[in-house]
Amino acid sequence: MSTVNVGIIGLGTVGGGTAHVILNRHDDFLKHYGYDLKIKRACALEPERAAELGIAPEAFTTDWRDVVTDPDVNIVVELIGGDHPATEIFEAAFAAGKHVVTANKALLGRHVEKLAHEAAAAGVQIKCEAAAGGGIPIVNALEHTLVGNEILTVAGILNGTTNYILTRVENEGKSFDEVLADAQHLGYAEADPTADVDGFDAAAKVAILASIGFRTRVTTDDVHTEGIRSIAPIDFEMAHNMGCTIKLLGIARNTAAGVDARVQPTMIPTSHMLASVSNAMNAVYVVGDAVGETMFYGAGAGSYPTASAVVGDICVLAEHITGGTVAPESEPFERSLPVLPIEELVTRYYLRLSVEDKLGALAEAVQVFAKHNVSVARINQNEVGTDGANTLVFVTHKASERDMQAACAELRGLDSVREVAALIRIEDCDAWTDGVMAN
Amino acid sequence: MSTVNVGIIGLGTVGGGTAHVILNRHDDFLKHYGYDLKIKRACALEPERAAELGIAPEAFTTDWRDVVTDPDVNIVVELIGGDHPATEIFEAAFAAGKHVVTANKALLGRHVEKLAHEAAAAGVQIKCEAAAGGGIPIVNALEHTLVGNEILTVAGILNGTTNYILTRVENEGKSFDEVLADAQHLGYAEADPTADVDGFDAAAKVAILASIGFRTRVTTDDVHTEGIRSIAPIDFEMAHNMGCTIKLLGIARNTAAGVDARVQPTMIPTSHMLASVSNAMNAVYVVGDAVGETMFYGAGAGSYPTASAVVGDICVLAEHITGGTVAPESEPFERSLPVLPIEELVTRYYLRLSVEDKLGALAEAVQVFAKHNVSVARINQNEVGTDGANTLVFVTHKASERDMQAACAELRGLDSVREVAALIRIEDCDAWTDGVMAN
Repeated sequence: MSTVNVGIIGLGTVGGGTAHVILNRHDDFLKHYGYDLKIKRACALEPERAAELGIAPEAFTTDWRDVVTDPDVNIVVELIGGDHPATEIFEAAFAAGKHVVTANKALLGRHVEKLAHEAAAAGVQIKCEAAAGGGIPIVNALEHTLVGNEILTVAGILNGTTNYILTRVENEGKSFDEVLADAQHLGYAEADPTADVDGFDAAAKVAILASIGFRTRVTTDDVHTEGIRSIAPIDFEMAHNMGCTIKLLGIARNTAAGVDARVQPTMIPTSHMLASVSNAMNAVYVVGDAVGETMFYGAGAGSYPTASAVVGDICVLAEHITGGTVAPESEPFERSLPVLPIEELVTRYYLRLSVEDKLGALAEAVQVFAKHNVSVARINQNEVGTDGANTLVFVTHKASERDMQAACAELRGLDSVREVAALIRIEDCDAWTDGVMAN
Repeated sequence: MSTVNVGIIGLGTVGGGTAHVILNRHDDFLKHYGYDLKIKRACALEPERAAELGIAPEAFTTDWRDVVTDPDVNIVVELIGGDHPATEIFEAAFAAGKHVVTANKALLGRHVEKLAHEAAAAGVQIKCEAAAGGGIPIVNALEHTLVGNEILTVAGILNGTTNYILTRVENEGKSFDEVLADAQHLGYAEADPTADVDGFDAAAKVAILASIGFRTRVTTDDVHTEGIRSIAPIDFEMAHNMGCTIKLLGIARNTAAGVDARVQPTMIPTSHMLASVSNAMNAVYVVGDAVGETMFYGAGAGSYPTASAVVGDICVLAEHITGGTVAPESEPFERSLPVLPIEELVTRYYLRLSVEDKLGALAEAVQVFAKHNVSVARINQNEVGTDGANTLVFVTHKASERDMQAACAELRGLDSVREVAALIRIEDCDAWTDGVMAN
């Protein structure tokens, strides 16, 4: 019987769930895999937390260095998040020849390629199933089960908070601000909701999934990112009229010209599988050239779902360790695909303008579109609201983001335009399957 | 650089796709993983087929023994299906110390536990990602990425042909027979559609997924199996009135009393993710005690989607081979959970009766239900059809399958009853998550 020793740093929501699952399934792992998976060290601020989880007192420490330097520890599990000391933990773990399992999406979103190279150089692995899609086993699928494919598209609902808010705006017809306040009250959104509602959390996950799926370097900074603050019930009404709904999607496409990576509120057909993903659930749509369209659905956050992913990574490493090989599996991220500037995006647009209730406002707006080569497919004008403003909705044919942004800038300068209130891309989901081999 | 030699037996739809993907991605695997993945031998009936796929002439043979006995072959890929010579191929491969990758769902459905034990005894692995769910990476998820979970439920749309037929019966209001004939014409259904429409194909997949997910022995014979021949447009109308749709589900539940394993046309809420899976697509819903609800969606058949799964298995083995370990990963199927007899199922039922248009027919039927402890929740009586028969639809409260079958037997004996035309379980999807840990 071989022993595999885990050192957990951080016993918060995810760390506590991970410790619980490891202890809970210890006997089962022993019986099924033949290894004795032990929490040799556990680092947190308070010993009471470790005791409450049933972790042995001698395993407890408040100093992460005790975990990383313990010669018996095979796998360092970093679950504190943030940049520091996570960065130092990774460095020290690699230097000590220890594998690392992490859920640190913000750090990986910026440095996944660098960290993978450092791990490979040290002859160890860094595994991050929990960092993108929470409990959804998507990273392993991209790394292993789908290796027969050139991955063409990864597009997902990667943030539960924003999906929950959009679901309620859609179903209840309430404003973003009202639903956000209630979501904060219910614990679905944080006091500072920026990372979620402005799309940054999803952007980190897009960077991770694109890097792993396309085997190239994509960082969070490469991902054009927009949030959902401007989405209103009227946008859902208009979307429904077109057979669509609105989701905050993280999209990464591996095109001949380069990688198209972005997070945007997006109109997609209600018949698309991603449209069925509601409330706080996540899903990742993956298109491979052989397998075609696939989708992976599940909880993107939460203590035990995330722990499920962390423990899955630990067990894969444990199998390698007990099997006698711990070599890095591959030369990671060997491609250097260009990332396309967002200005080169070509798509259809939904634009909602708030305009003064005066003659000629519509004509002026239409002229601006024409000037910038944006062809309008539909126009909808609503009755004047209590604020004395008209709402004009335009749906365009395909146009470039460059032209559309130039048109928006000019629209904002018009006296008749109060506000470009919402600009939503109408995603061409059919293009996601470009390059799939015909059966 | 290490070479990994594959021997493919069968170059039909799946074998041809597999050969194409291996050859197509050869350079990519070499660059990314550092191994030279070669088709060392390929067995088919006609050399032209191998030539057309670009397989080297010296690799070709018409005798599967040449593949299995080639000392250079590391991995035998069995893609001919059927019982023989597949069984002999497995035995010979294990005896020669070679790993096996297979998509042979019918054989695995009966013998997955036995084959896994034989492989383990021989110190090799048998991998079968393609045998359940085609291109959907579900087997690896159950075996590896979800090991932190006790798997509670595996429920899926596991057969594309029946899902395609049901989708068209639902959307077009045509009869089963009419849609089947058209599906056969279009190549979506085989000339002998029995394996698909009577549920046997799905039953084999349930056996495989339940065995792997619950780590116990479930064979196709253990799976209570019903097909979709009795499903008519009126059943969809009635289902819609209750906010439901009808899917042929393969369901395996890991309950305290034992394994509940069955294939049945099933009413599920239209809001359930599985209800959104239409046409020939497949999906597997997996509930784990830590991760909660997940779903894996994709193509369940087809040349390249299935090849994607086969090549994924090959590459995982290739990594192990080049990494120096090829030990069996686990003691498989160490549990011996009882399989529950179908009579012990407790669920709600939808029953459609064809009755004579005469006074008292409804009263007689209702009395039969009462006698057998089946409590009726809804009754719907339709106008007399052109055949002079009344259609009576009953929806019951929860009842046992034993009581319901006794009631149906007695109903069939009534003079007023022409036929028990359809009996559909109304699945309690909420029960699938019994046992999930609260976050």
